[in-house]
Amino acid sequence: MRVALGIEYDGRQYFGWQRQAEVDSVQAQLERALSKVANEPIRVHCAGRTDAGVHATGQVVHFETNAIRKDSAWTLGVNVNLPDDIAVRWVKIVDDEFHARFSATARRYRYMIYNYDYRPGILRSGVSHYRGNIDADIMHQAAQQFVGEHDFTSFRALHCQSKTPFRSVHEVNVTRQGMYICVDIKANAFLHHMVRNIVGTLLEIGLGNQRPEWIPQLLDLKDRSQAAPTAKPNGLYMVDVTYPERYELPKLALGPLFMLD
Amino acid sequence: MRVALGIEYDGRQYFGWQRQAEVDSVQAQLERALSKVANEPIRVHCAGRTDAGVHATGQVVHFETNAIRKDSAWTLGVNVNLPDDIAVRWVKIVDDEFHARFSATARRYRYMIYNYDYRPGILRSGVSHYRGNIDADIMHQAAQQFVGEHDFTSFRALHCQSKTPFRSVHEVNVTRQGMYICVDIKANAFLHHMVRNIVGTLLEIGLGNQRPEWIPQLLDLKDRSQAAPTAKPNGLYMVDVTYPERYELPKLALGPLFMLD
Repeated sequence: MRVALGIEYDGRQYFGWQRQAEVDSVQAQLERALSKVANEPIRVHCAGRTDAGVHATGQVVHFETNAIRKDSAWTLGVNVNLPDDIAVRWVKIVDDEFHARFSATARRYRYMIYNYDYRPGILRSGVSHYRGNIDADIMHQAAQQFVGEHDFTSFRALHCQSKTPFRSVHEVNVTRQGMYICVDIKANAFLHHMVRNIVGTLLEIGLGNQRPEWIPQLLDLKDRSQAAPTAKPNGLYMVDVTYPERYELPKLALGPLFMLD
Repeated sequence: MRVALGIEYDGRQYFGWQRQAEVDSVQAQLERALSKVANEPIRVHCAGRTDAGVHATGQVVHFETNAIRKDSAWTLGVNVNLPDDIAVRWVKIVDDEFHARFSATARRYRYMIYNYDYRPGILRSGVSHYRGNIDADIMHQAAQQFVGEHDFTSFRALHCQSKTPFRSVHEVNVTRQGMYICVDIKANAFLHHMVRNIVGTLLEIGLGNQRPEWIPQLLDLKDRSQAAPTAKPNGLYMVDVTYPERYELPKLALGPLFMLD
């Protein structure tokens, strides 16, 4: 039987999604909890691996199991066995064609900027703090130049292992809510560090250090060293993964927290 | 010289606001950081003491000092010396009549309920998780019966040391945003556990276990044991304190987080 789960986590305490030998990961914690409930070893596949310190409200995983369990075992039962910064949000039995990574047609991330003179005291690892006058409207206008298919070499990590630097950005929205600026970006898939590199570059434009024309120039240059530094991981949330309608996966508010759809 | 500060904190790690001999408190951390910057012992007075696990975005304190410092020393300088779950949000030099507690004319709290079948993975100590169908509209209507001056004996902790059980509630608003319900309540002052006892009772009504008429009955009974259990501390935030206009204290978004005014 193949089971899909929606997963939320606060990435602060973990060395990223992926299971590693010496350090704690979200995947290792989830597999441990699922294996307990299934009473057999469980290996999960996720829609997208997140880096150390990155969060998710809409991560999706699937796994194979011989265990027959009620839905509540895969939600409430697994949650009891998870640390309190990881939670199952929904469960759905899927057919054998479904694959959390390969069936996904798009991913969506939100990057939460806390823009104020002084650092925050609450959710300090869940927002990225930037000082200065940041113009979210100019960031939004400039960001539209990322929409469409581009070679994102200037925005991928040097050690990114993807075979192609091309990605198709479906939409980008930059909105301000009081002291918070949300960069919301949807693409077919993302290169390593692509969201944080895009946000770093948009911040330079929002701060007035660069002009919007910088973006097409950077895309043309195909040189990571020309773009802005990678934005901090704290503010980044994987909020949604799109799958074909026929899988009928549950749709929840994207968040994080009090952010509505 | 008398200095007022706006303070934000995540109360999870602290045994409440008030300095105590054996355990860590927000007050002790703040006084330690201020004393370093002032290079003399500093004692602060706050607008309202919060309990263990309770948060604040709008706590206000004042202190006396002989130290002459730039504003940035009382904000950035103090923040550097504070743990990262406490932050100064603003500073204002005030005249000697100002008292964080006695000059305050009203306090405002927000209680954040996460209403979903499964527990959250993010900000789990910053929201209170309640399952079931909670009707926020009925809570809001019922809550209007708290507005005005009442004897709140049924809603005060048994060990509350206030001389009078009378408090004047200025306004209460209960609003739903997706999975979140915010109970926003403003009063001249609050008795010990008063917000959490009001929220506990409103939740019983929102869940359909009690009818709105229960509230005037409880107010009449003047018996704490008749009302609902105290709601958990996690979701509670002190968001604002009102002072006479002439003090010209800064006004920031109340929060928490992405909650706008």
